[in-house]
Amino acid sequence: MEKSTSRQSRKKVVAVVGGGLVGALNACFFAKRGFDVELFESREDIRRAKIVKGRSINLALSHRGRQALKHVGLEEKIVAKGIPMHARMIHSLNGKQSPIPYGRKGQVSLTNFCNIFPLTAAETYPNTKMNFDHKLQDWNAETGLMTFARLDGSKEQVKTDLIVGCDGAFSAVRKQFLRRSRFDYSQTYIPHGYMELTMLPINGEFAMKPNYLHIWPRNTFMMIALPNLDKTFTCTLFMPFEDFEKITTGDEVIEFFQKYFPDTIPLIGADTLQRDYFRLPAQAMVSVKCNPYHIGDACVLMGDAAHAVVPFYGQGMNAGFEDCIVFDEIMDQFNEDFSAVLPEYTRVRVPDDHAIADLAMYNYIEMRAHVNSKWFLFRKYVDNILYFFMPKTIIPLYTMVTFTRTRYHEAVKRWHWQNKIRLLVLGSVLNCLICLCWRLLL
Amino acid sequence: MEKSTSRQSRKKVVAVVGGGLVGALNACFFAKRGFDVELFESREDIRRAKIVKGRSINLALSHRGRQALKHVGLEEKIVAKGIPMHARMIHSLNGKQSPIPYGRKGQVSLTNFCNIFPLTAAETYPNTKMNFDHKLQDWNAETGLMTFARLDGSKEQVKTDLIVGCDGAFSAVRKQFLRRSRFDYSQTYIPHGYMELTMLPINGEFAMKPNYLHIWPRNTFMMIALPNLDKTFTCTLFMPFEDFEKITTGDEVIEFFQKYFPDTIPLIGADTLQRDYFRLPAQAMVSVKCNPYHIGDACVLMGDAAHAVVPFYGQGMNAGFEDCIVFDEIMDQFNEDFSAVLPEYTRVRVPDDHAIADLAMYNYIEMRAHVNSKWFLFRKYVDNILYFFMPKTIIPLYTMVTFTRTRYHEAVKRWHWQNKIRLLVLGSVLNCLICLCWRLLL
Repeated sequence: MEKSTSRQSRKKVVAVVGGGLVGALNACFFAKRGFDVELFESREDIRRAKIVKGRSINLALSHRGRQALKHVGLEEKIVAKGIPMHARMIHSLNGKQSPIPYGRKGQVSLTNFCNIFPLTAAETYPNTKMNFDHKLQDWNAETGLMTFARLDGSKEQVKTDLIVGCDGAFSAVRKQFLRRSRFDYSQTYIPHGYMELTMLPINGEFAMKPNYLHIWPRNTFMMIALPNLDKTFTCTLFMPFEDFEKITTGDEVIEFFQKYFPDTIPLIGADTLQRDYFRLPAQAMVSVKCNPYHIGDACVLMGDAAHAVVPFYGQGMNAGFEDCIVFDEIMDQFNEDFSAVLPEYTRVRVPDDHAIADLAMYNYIEMRAHVNSKWFLFRKYVDNILYFFMPKTIIPLYTMVTFTRTRYHEAVKRWHWQNKIRLLVLGSVLNCLICLCWRLLL
Repeated sequence: MEKSTSRQSRKKVVAVVGGGLVGALNACFFAKRGFDVELFESREDIRRAKIVKGRSINLALSHRGRQALKHVGLEEKIVAKGIPMHARMIHSLNGKQSPIPYGRKGQVSLTNFCNIFPLTAAETYPNTKMNFDHKLQDWNAETGLMTFARLDGSKEQVKTDLIVGCDGAFSAVRKQFLRRSRFDYSQTYIPHGYMELTMLPINGEFAMKPNYLHIWPRNTFMMIALPNLDKTFTCTLFMPFEDFEKITTGDEVIEFFQKYFPDTIPLIGADTLQRDYFRLPAQAMVSVKCNPYHIGDACVLMGDAAHAVVPFYGQGMNAGFEDCIVFDEIMDQFNEDFSAVLPEYTRVRVPDDHAIADLAMYNYIEMRAHVNSKWFLFRKYVDNILYFFMPKTIIPLYTMVTFTRTRYHEAVKRWHWQNKIRLLVLGSVLNCLICLCWRLLL
């Protein structure tokens, strides 16, 4: 059955593949512009499905993501469903807790069920049609013809003017790119896996201070916990797969937590801990980079399909949401002419996405190891002082990435430059101190 | 039709996918060990096909490749079909030619038709069966079942104990790896394309000095020429795709060569040049890295399927051939127990293949730009002097890579270390010179 959707309309038909956060938000962006939007999702409508726990890391919504949501009137609705986080809270081995402020407010902890909001928002546009249970099997860049498989075994063919691939890290849309020449692609798995454990409320209240991203850095592994609206925390343990595999009994779980995260045992509860640990095997984490993001004027990749990142900078969702605004800005610039918009999108966006992928990988090491060190704390301290005195000149990297829309690759460039300035300032402070000591001694 | 080849034999069945150089050589290695070998090649028997010119860069056979060929008694036969190359010959813009010796002998220029020899050699083993016109469509790591498509539209299923994927940079075997979790993979295209041009003999003799790898380094682009047994040279022009595309007429070809490679016009001939330039579009070059190389005890990747490299270190074929010896050595070590051999092969070989891929990329820049510079020549000169005085301590990188079987990653490590030694030696020589001048002045 071929369903031609190239109707007699002023606007072209845009097929968004993937009904996750970025796909649904993108549908809103295209619908707002007046395109006929068809959203295709391989699964059933997730709003009617049971929430699958332990399958997705909690999400930190920050400035870039909020700006994108704001554009389609979703910011306040979603922020209200999250818990603000104003600082990191570092848990030492002896149970001591030390906050490290972010410097700015605006970061919100979300659970992954939040993607129902962009979906529902997309549905409210009369020019948007939702197609669940549509698994992309094949598509043709020359004809725009897409073939979907349905659960009942039937096939469906759809013709479209633009395919927007938002179907995640293992994108089916991207497969077509891999068959073409001169497509750069890399997927890198890190040696760590992750596992989610739930910390329930105690006496109806959060078991730890909310409004913090709790971190237990332990060098080769670490745990983090993000607060949820239902007063639970989602704890995520990051550890090399081989270490996960060493723990095979309930007793070993308790022994391990007793040794490395003793303060969490009474909070999570020994029984829950033993049950949750064996519920699902540890999940893998992959970093995906590619270039270009488009094929002709026919197809473009966004979100994890274009740039899956490891979750250690909390920017995966934010980068995906920002893709939507960047594309939207270029659409304005080139009057919605896909043949000009798509190459420009690749040109502008690839260096930024590669930069955030690298930063996330860098933080994968920093969060486990350095966040605990005196040198790290001292550097953060110096950065915050410099930021206080020169707020327009010296902006900490984390601030640029999390609380501004400075282009990722420019943030990295500026960071390198600022590191030199910091050394200069430290050098002259040291110099002054030496002179002072000298005078005092004479 | 299912063709079960797990006969009542002492040895297991090994399916080699790909009848190129590495596939055919591997078939010899496995046959020599007494395995029942089935070789599958998607094309017709290339020995009966016409040679497709301009489709493959000329090959430089060096020590690693020769050692592998020697193991199955093919070295002398193949070396006799090539031309020895003892030095590079640098062509300046003004036509001046300067040789830069390799320091050792043993490198041979081959044309790609040479893969008929390993094929014929494999066929002489009674326990080897050749299956041409067998295009791999799918295979299953758990069952060892492979499905092939034939040109007549029929399918054939074959069951095997081990699949050896030697099916090149765009490997069909590797696709199954990409579907599995925790498989690292990258493909990187370089901005340069390549084009082959033929320099015919003049008066029945080589048009330039044979026994040299001729190089015309021109910074952003370059040309090389390798001698063939029929007294032709295969010239390969490496240039950014955008520069290839700028040249659209015969006159522009001549104008371009007049400007950058004036000495080659009388040698290639203006007519040939104009014809050859437009015969085929410039070809892309890709660097492929992956990890692991195996799935369980069922499948292993070798040659370009595991590590396609850019052709700038002349090691693509040699690295692929060396894969065969390394695998063979590990087979001895672990008594042909695939469940131990395959993981060990990955562990040992991945760092070496990644090192040669990086080196080839490094040489991609060095060959175009530095080979021409005074600093490069001076460094080579110092290296050769140090090598002369300390032949066991200081070995030039090119020598280690091309004329020894030092593991690639160890050669790189040693090179970094030697660079420091060179600086130290240069420093003390400089020091002596200054002292000497000082004394002479006083």
